[in-house]
Amino acid sequence: MRIDIITVLPELLESPFAASILKRAIEKGLVEVHMHNIRDYTDMSYNRVDDYQFGGGAGMVLMIEPIDKCIAALKAEREYDEIIYMTPDGETLNQRMANGISLLNNVIILCGHYKGVDQRIRDAFITREISVGDYVLSGGELGAAILCDAVIRLIPGVLNNETSALTDTFQDDLLAPPVYTRPSEYKGMKVPEILLSGNFPKIEEWREDQALKRTQERRPDLLE
Amino acid sequence: MRIDIITVLPELLESPFAASILKRAIEKGLVEVHMHNIRDYTDMSYNRVDDYQFGGGAGMVLMIEPIDKCIAALKAEREYDEIIYMTPDGETLNQRMANGISLLNNVIILCGHYKGVDQRIRDAFITREISVGDYVLSGGELGAAILCDAVIRLIPGVLNNETSALTDTFQDDLLAPPVYTRPSEYKGMKVPEILLSGNFPKIEEWREDQALKRTQERRPDLLE
Repeated sequence: MRIDIITVLPELLESPFAASILKRAIEKGLVEVHMHNIRDYTDMSYNRVDDYQFGGGAGMVLMIEPIDKCIAALKAEREYDEIIYMTPDGETLNQRMANGISLLNNVIILCGHYKGVDQRIRDAFITREISVGDYVLSGGELGAAILCDAVIRLIPGVLNNETSALTDTFQDDLLAPPVYTRPSEYKGMKVPEILLSGNFPKIEEWREDQALKRTQERRPDLLE
Repeated sequence: MRIDIITVLPELLESPFAASILKRAIEKGLVEVHMHNIRDYTDMSYNRVDDYQFGGGAGMVLMIEPIDKCIAALKAEREYDEIIYMTPDGETLNQRMANGISLLNNVIILCGHYKGVDQRIRDAFITREISVGDYVLSGGELGAAILCDAVIRLIPGVLNNETSALTDTFQDDLLAPPVYTRPSEYKGMKVPEILLSGNFPKIEEWREDQALKRTQERRPDLLE
């Protein structure tokens, strides 16, 4: 899988891709992630890429020309399955969407910043608009990092133990059961006895029961 | 406002706090963000902070002792309004929650990693569990960055123009209207005439109309 991220702030995304699972996935060659600075595609003075919005109002808007040029340069090199725009009014990301996107080959992710991008970019170039949640961020960069993390960890071979992702919350529309590790007692707080019993069928039963109970209490909407 | 982030991967969070709005907010003294590495609070060899889960199964679990010590050290210094755990089975973050958290003074954010933290940590120390969305990430770090970004930009003085955050998507339960900037025509694509008219009451009306229309089309649930 290849992911091209278009942003005015590539430096914001450095450390998330240089640590942990994303770093290992890149090093193993399981995914390529390339950053493209919109400022490299403008002819304006001071590498300007934004301007005031037509009709007045607070907040700057990213201009169409440099983004058009950047997308065109990428599309000249290869076919893209999706050109995604991160925006709070997009389709809300969930695990099922992440599963689907992890099967694609080439994806562009455009990060908005300031007040967003010129609407004509969305109308003309974007194939899918995705939101990571119902809140506003300074830009699309952290949303892009979230999307990449959610997607890349699902690519076979990225996690050490493939079953690890399959037992995650949401993969079966249930929240995950509680987990415990050593010591079995800490300041009077004990691990549930069943987990120490070695009776694996019973442990599995307890976990399914706890997962269902937690989902009923916290997220009954997932069971509908 | 002071935010203490407890994590096994402080390096993952470096660049988001060293760029853009978060950086400026920290430089202006409007918020303090401190990272705490859980590995600094363990006595085990190799700075070990995780172990296999009781009862078997894939994925490592963060142990209670180092996290207890880290939280205790912080609580000895000051009172905390909330000790938040980032987890996909927490309360789903939305703009209203971000508004509320932006009014607090001292907040701890604990990032899970691997399969999560020992459940006794959640039972004993955590006052609030927050999810950034219905998807699974490699750890709580990017969720913590998202939460900080959503919250910090609401602190008065952080954005250059305070009205900028007030006209964002979600602040009035409506999605934002489309925005446009120069040039008024690009490769045959034109900006809506009304925005070039200079008739500001009409422009305001058009924007309200567009915001409502977009919300009805994309997120009718916000209007209920």
